[in-house]
Amino acid sequence: MNISHIEHVGIAVTSLEEAIPFYENMLGIKCFAIEEVADQKVKTAFFKVGQTKIELLEATAPESAIAKFIEKNGGRGGIQHIAFAIEDGVANALAEVQEKGGRVVDAQPRKGAEGLNIAFLHPKTTCGALVELCEDPNKK
Amino acid sequence: MNISHIEHVGIAVTSLEEAIPFYENMLGIKCFAIEEVADQKVKTAFFKVGQTKIELLEATAPESAIAKFIEKNGGRGGIQHIAFAIEDGVANALAEVQEKGGRVVDAQPRKGAEGLNIAFLHPKTTCGALVELCEDPNKK
Repeated sequence: MNISHIEHVGIAVTSLEEAIPFYENMLGIKCFAIEEVADQKVKTAFFKVGQTKIELLEATAPESAIAKFIEKNGGRGGIQHIAFAIEDGVANALAEVQEKGGRVVDAQPRKGAEGLNIAFLHPKTTCGALVELCEDPNKK
Repeated sequence: MNISHIEHVGIAVTSLEEAIPFYENMLGIKCFAIEEVADQKVKTAFFKVGQTKIELLEATAPESAIAKFIEKNGGRGGIQHIAFAIEDGVANALAEVQEKGGRVVDAQPRKGAEGLNIAFLHPKTTCGALVELCEDPNKK
């Protein structure tokens, strides 16, 4: 696969309302979009830092992956995933990982925030980190 | 403070020897340096992805922050910190954070991997994420 850059870093927070002011007032970066992704039961806030976005994630239901991450993390937020922008397509990348013996969470790309095609690799394969692969279908 | 980009993302791993092949063979990115930072009791491996580095971190002693992170994380690796490149200096940024009522782990910049000046903010201030500020003193 051909990775061009880190598309975003996903950070779980207990409350967007509390977290956004830290990123805006202390770090001086501006939130440019807030989006609810019903499918993943999260509300997200986006910031741009150079080539990469920061995606803050608040759970909207107890069964959300973000709620489970925060519960495991002693009730605190933390960095939940890292997403790589794939130049030659997520479907190709998933096939390549599996061909090489790696495990994936999503066997096929699905829709994520901002209309991106996304898929997660299995943490067993990535040595612990939650790794997302993504592509912007409008860039094709 | 003026952030230009994400300098690196720090990922804790239980073994560099196991993790490096995932990043090289599956993601297709190349490790360009391995460095031991005795002060922080870690061995690090660096990869470049666009503007940003991936810094894999393996603990070299049980009292290392990386060993504690892995222990808290059920014995697994995970994304431990995010480091922002500060254009107007880490010392200024630390002063600004404290002036605005934020807490810091390092009151003064110290030396990190690759000779950077670095400092960590307190996770209470950052809503959970471990945030590092850094600058390359050779770029001044």
